[in-house]
Amino acid sequence: MLKPDRLCAFTDGVVAIAITLLVLGLEVPSVHKVPPQELQAYLIDSFHPFVGFISSFVLIGTYWLQHYAIFHFVTHANRVFVALNGLFLLCITFIPFPTGLLAAYRHDELATIFYACTNIACSLSLLSLWMYAAHRHRLIDSEVAPDVIRSITRRIAITPAISLAAIAMSFVNITAGRAIFLAIPIVYLSHRAADAGWMVANNSHIAPELSDPEENPRAPS
Amino acid sequence: MLKPDRLCAFTDGVVAIAITLLVLGLEVPSVHKVPPQELQAYLIDSFHPFVGFISSFVLIGTYWLQHYAIFHFVTHANRVFVALNGLFLLCITFIPFPTGLLAAYRHDELATIFYACTNIACSLSLLSLWMYAAHRHRLIDSEVAPDVIRSITRRIAITPAISLAAIAMSFVNITAGRAIFLAIPIVYLSHRAADAGWMVANNSHIAPELSDPEENPRAPS
Amino acid sequence: MLKPDRLCAFTDGVVAIAITLLVLGLEVPSVHKVPPQELQAYLIDSFHPFVGFISSFVLIGTYWLQHYAIFHFVTHANRVFVALNGLFLLCITFIPFPTGLLAAYRHDELATIFYACTNIACSLSLLSLWMYAAHRHRLIDSEVAPDVIRSITRRIAITPAISLAAIAMSFVNITAGRAIFLAIPIVYLSHRAADAGWMVANNSHIAPELSDPEENPRAPS
Amino acid sequence: MLKPDRLCAFTDGVVAIAITLLVLGLEVPSVHKVPPQELQAYLIDSFHPFVGFISSFVLIGTYWLQHYAIFHFVTHANRVFVALNGLFLLCITFIPFPTGLLAAYRHDELATIFYACTNIACSLSLLSLWMYAAHRHRLIDSEVAPDVIRSITRRIAITPAISLAAIAMSFVNITAGRAIFLAIPIVYLSHRAADAGWMVANNSHIAPELSDPEENPRAPS
Repeated sequence: MLKPDRLCAFTDGVVAIAITLLVLGLEVPSVHKVPPQELQAYLIDSFHPFVGFISSFVLIGTYWLQHYAIFHFVTHANRVFVALNGLFLLCITFIPFPTGLLAAYRHDELATIFYACTNIACSLSLLSLWMYAAHRHRLIDSEVAPDVIRSITRRIAITPAISLAAIAMSFVNITAGRAIFLAIPIVYLSHRAADAGWMVANNSHIAPELSDPEENPRAPS
Repeated sequence: MLKPDRLCAFTDGVVAIAITLLVLGLEVPSVHKVPPQELQAYLIDSFHPFVGFISSFVLIGTYWLQHYAIFHFVTHANRVFVALNGLFLLCITFIPFPTGLLAAYRHDELATIFYACTNIACSLSLLSLWMYAAHRHRLIDSEVAPDVIRSITRRIAITPAISLAAIAMSFVNITAGRAIFLAIPIVYLSHRAADAGWMVANNSHIAPELSDPEENPRAPS
Repeated sequence: MLKPDRLCAFTDGVVAIAITLLVLGLEVPSVHKVPPQELQAYLIDSFHPFVGFISSFVLIGTYWLQHYAIFHFVTHANRVFVALNGLFLLCITFIPFPTGLLAAYRHDELATIFYACTNIACSLSLLSLWMYAAHRHRLIDSEVAPDVIRSITRRIAITPAISLAAIAMSFVNITAGRAIFLAIPIVYLSHRAADAGWMVANNSHIAPELSDPEENPRAPS
Repeated sequence: MLKPDRLCAFTDGVVAIAITLLVLGLEVPSVHKVPPQELQAYLIDSFHPFVGFISSFVLIGTYWLQHYAIFHFVTHANRVFVALNGLFLLCITFIPFPTGLLAAYRHDELATIFYACTNIACSLSLLSLWMYAAHRHRLIDSEVAPDVIRSITRRIAITPAISLAAIAMSFVNITAGRAIFLAIPIVYLSHRAADAGWMVANNSHIAPELSDPEENPRAPS
């Protein structure tokens, strides 16, 4: 009860709802009127909201994994940490709005910039959450190695960098700019450190980056 | 914390929301306007969304039960497993969209095909999740019998088969094609192996299919 | 994992979402248009959805308490129990639809009948869930006293009775008919047996009805 | 199972959904029509709903923290407590409605009054929940010090006071009146007692206000 468990469960609830509400961006014609067009044309029109649904789903999922990695090391919480976690949740629940604008204003680079800024806000709030907790091992286990801390910091910091690249590219080509966002989950999951907290069955979470199941046969497989 | 518990709880949250959002497909007239028609006529018009609500509810429920059965055996997780689980969630949260189209385009077999494809995607993602975890007992208890693994694989694989049959039938008769989807939960629940993970009170989950409470009086009842 | 815990948590999630989605029945004017009327007139128009919001909120809350009381005694589950629980969830998630119709068709007794039938379905599914579990102590602790079983059965069975009375009254006076639904939570909470599962701090849940904290000073207070 | 855990988890679920549904107040133009205006003008028009989204998010978050603090001390529950908790949830789930009206009727002080009354209802229900539980240590640990009880009572009671000030100010200047609501989370989080339940890693939750991590180096940091 006194550990950050309830905060963690509440966060999971909010993120799970935000990720599921994205589907409401996929409009469905009313059954009480004649549909405005043939289904095939309707599905083609729904392509942009569909792409937005998938990309925001994957991005929120990535932020959740990063949040998971942070809470894997956090042992207790204080009111600053709770406030920073609330800021992260505010940014996450906001995502359906820029996602909807991305589809409605598909030819406007301002929509891409707005979407990128929301993602930058999400990752910066996550970064501040982590840096506040990890600074001098304030809220994390005192035995967590500096290597692990730097690795997590670096991997969260990739998101704002990719988002800035997406903004720059969107002035050249909007579609290319939007495609760049997909680098965020790919970069995150392609690194074996993403296994931190998943591959380890015991409490030996001091240096999960060092225990690669393929190289290290002693790790649980 | 290091076990797949938080992943499991997050999945439950997403599925619970997706299954509940289905009701938003049942439109309600605004109270700030005169209702467009008499209630009786309105309810008759709502019959198709109502059928879609029930069938998608039952299908998502079935996928949740299959997911439950998978996580019953999974002891740990890695990033590939997490990504496959995310793919499953993406498919599940998408379901309200084809469900809505099914009602709006009730005379169009393309709507049935689109709905069937979504269900095929759900079950294939579930199947890949299970096959990845069970392959050489990668992420499951090493004592789970091959019989049990094959049984679960087979029962998940029934869904794409039934969905393909629904597509084929929808070219003959749309209503009959749509009715076929209801075979998915019926087939799943009619087999006593669906009790796996429910009937057993201890950790003796090695071969749940062999312990039928009616045949085997030693199993807890 | 093998106990009904995950089923219980999933049910809680679905009920929590259904109870919160009720607020979507309270329409808000778009900020991108001039509001259709003065706020005061708008609030008066919102009175009927508001009453529907409150009454459905209270009814879903009561069903959740009854579900809580059932799961307090259930020790394990099987596929029939899971299917009956799913039927209960289907009825609960459906509630926002008749609630919306109740407000839109405020002068139509058919709306009241439809609303009452939904509540009858909710309570009958709950009743079948309980009777299936309690029959010959199939899924409940073998030491639960017959008195306790009968008490819970009786208290769940009050809901359909009250709903039928509401239908009958709505032919005389619609407002009076709708007011009768509020008897459901009042009757439920007015009986001290509603404390079952709350007042007891230990595992002595055999006969909670007998331990009244005001009469019995030995019970934990 | 017999402790207030399930009630607590259910409450968290409802609050998490209510806080996330706020984003639905941010309207998105349909992709199946030409957008009504340029994106820049659309974003400017969305400013008022955006402010309402943030302020209601922060207020619900603050109520959740206060609820967390209450349940930190509550050891068991009874039906009155459950009913008061339900009243709190009713008020919380209602918040998206006055939030939407605040944006739609941005020049109407009645909208501010309605919003303030909702916040007063939220905090009074929370206050009655706490006072019922704490009265003669009815439902809380008998060792909780009177100082701690009074401190929590006082900090919950600040919200109605601030809301009344917001109503008074809104007759002078609507924007200033609305800005006053932000004092609620600031006042709550600025006091170090907000750390109660977070900073303590053991069961020594008798007088959390006395253990300030900066003054008291023995407290976990």
